[in-house]
Amino acid sequence: MTKLYAGVDLGGTSMIAVVADRRGKVRGESGTYTLRDAKPADVIDQVADQIRTACKKASVKPSALESIGVGAPGAVEGAMVVRAPNLKWTNVPMGSVLSKRFRVPVALGNDVQVAILGEHSFGAAKGTNRAVGIWVGTGIGGGLIINGTLYTGSRGAAGEIGHMAVSDAGPLCPCGRNGCVEAFASRTSMERRVREAIALGRESVVPDIMRQKEKDRMTSSVIARALKADDAVMKEVFASAQHYLGLLAGNIVNLLDPEVIVIGGGIAQRLGDSFVAPIRETAQSRYLRPDPKGEIRIVPAALGDHSGALGASMLARKS
Amino acid sequence: MTKLYAGVDLGGTSMIAVVADRRGKVRGESGTYTLRDAKPADVIDQVADQIRTACKKASVKPSALESIGVGAPGAVEGAMVVRAPNLKWTNVPMGSVLSKRFRVPVALGNDVQVAILGEHSFGAAKGTNRAVGIWVGTGIGGGLIINGTLYTGSRGAAGEIGHMAVSDAGPLCPCGRNGCVEAFASRTSMERRVREAIALGRESVVPDIMRQKEKDRMTSSVIARALKADDAVMKEVFASAQHYLGLLAGNIVNLLDPEVIVIGGGIAQRLGDSFVAPIRETAQSRYLRPDPKGEIRIVPAALGDHSGALGASMLARKS
Repeated sequence: MTKLYAGVDLGGTSMIAVVADRRGKVRGESGTYTLRDAKPADVIDQVADQIRTACKKASVKPSALESIGVGAPGAVEGAMVVRAPNLKWTNVPMGSVLSKRFRVPVALGNDVQVAILGEHSFGAAKGTNRAVGIWVGTGIGGGLIINGTLYTGSRGAAGEIGHMAVSDAGPLCPCGRNGCVEAFASRTSMERRVREAIALGRESVVPDIMRQKEKDRMTSSVIARALKADDAVMKEVFASAQHYLGLLAGNIVNLLDPEVIVIGGGIAQRLGDSFVAPIRETAQSRYLRPDPKGEIRIVPAALGDHSGALGASMLARKS
Repeated sequence: MTKLYAGVDLGGTSMIAVVADRRGKVRGESGTYTLRDAKPADVIDQVADQIRTACKKASVKPSALESIGVGAPGAVEGAMVVRAPNLKWTNVPMGSVLSKRFRVPVALGNDVQVAILGEHSFGAAKGTNRAVGIWVGTGIGGGLIINGTLYTGSRGAAGEIGHMAVSDAGPLCPCGRNGCVEAFASRTSMERRVREAIALGRESVVPDIMRQKEKDRMTSSVIARALKADDAVMKEVFASAQHYLGLLAGNIVNLLDPEVIVIGGGIAQRLGDSFVAPIRETAQSRYLRPDPKGEIRIVPAALGDHSGALGASMLARKS
């Protein structure tokens, strides 16, 4: 019988669970919005529900799963989510709770790290030994594949790509520092910069689009619509974000000389190579060793919103 | 009988050859200034002479060496020095020439990569799995140890740390770009910035010290003397270099979460922790994951001017 694995991508806004085989074929999936301001136990119940629903769609009993993996938006140690600011969690033993409930092995990982693991296992970084993921969303996260496996560093703190300085000044980052690429190029920072431009008297259709779409945040779909409408403020802010992401990608190439940099997250998913191409161009202009043959690929993630859940399904898998 | 290995650190200015045992104990050494504007064959003759002299001092026949390794200041592929700007070399088959001459296996490496290999084998990064070297000299080079071995990337181009952008503006780098850490913090860039300050009418004792020491360049010893004399321009330029090196080191920690960052090169060798401490302080201020226990060390190289030659002696060694 085909072995099946569950993987969950747990985010601050929404979660997706998949049941997949060892080749990353999704047999069943389920998703929902993450409860806001709920107790950790209630969110873990949601996760368990999504796993059960995905199992049902895949026609497998949860107890017949080989393993469950969950990517959480924060720092993870063993079966514990140590810190997840977007969930307001500290030291939540999600792994133990789920493994008791389902009686199968459960492993946890960081959300961006499992996303790059997913892309490495089944997507844009498949078959590579050296890959770097840059995930652009509320913040900017990263993940590294080195020697063909996930690289997490000495303290499990590797891949904090969003807080690499690409400027010696620049706007204040949510982390409290200046110059972080996240302060220029996360979705949140782009929204802040658009609001600042409007506050200074610039005209922009962004607020209208947000009202039309009934969004209280500048989501990827709002960004896409504003760009399509040729909104000057949005175009400037977007180009600036791409510029700084290009410096970041160039820095990573000069340091690590990887085979591929995968750009993921909502904006990359929605806009694909029209988001990534200018990033690639800036990055290439920074390579100390030129790459005329295009050996280093800088590409959008290939698995859409499944990168994280499929990567998570790899976590508890025995190789 | 103890197995002995030769290692050569070949630089644009000078070269050092050592004969060492497997524990990195130097049994014999020899050094000289590198011929300027000479044919590659003449410089290779110099290298061979230094190896012979080091062998003599170690009381071993060159033919009895287990192997020879050479670190060259540029890009290396197999037995070929592909490009070495400071030597004005292109495609020089130094490895083949030396192995024919000595009839022992010869391996080549990049000078900074062998230096971090030396520090990893016998010095400040000994026993670590994840170490990064930042070598500050004429330029700024880097080397990475990942999973306990030298990491050179997909095209052998990893570790070009000097050309990571830490600013979105800043002075022009010799590489033709702006914002590279090398443009702020190499010895050459520091010298350029001191000269610029003087040209703008600032007073500085640096030119006097250079005359006294009969140096046509602002060497490490000139820098050390000017700092001791409390020269305001030198202090500013030096502090700025340390600031940008701190941003660089912080970026590397946020990306790679290494156990140790080793700062090497002439300035670090001469000034030790008085050079490194402010770099460490700035880096620590940038860590997204704080390091209250000081798990991540940022330290000067420990092997003095032997890092490169001892690392080179490791190159051709069978493990």
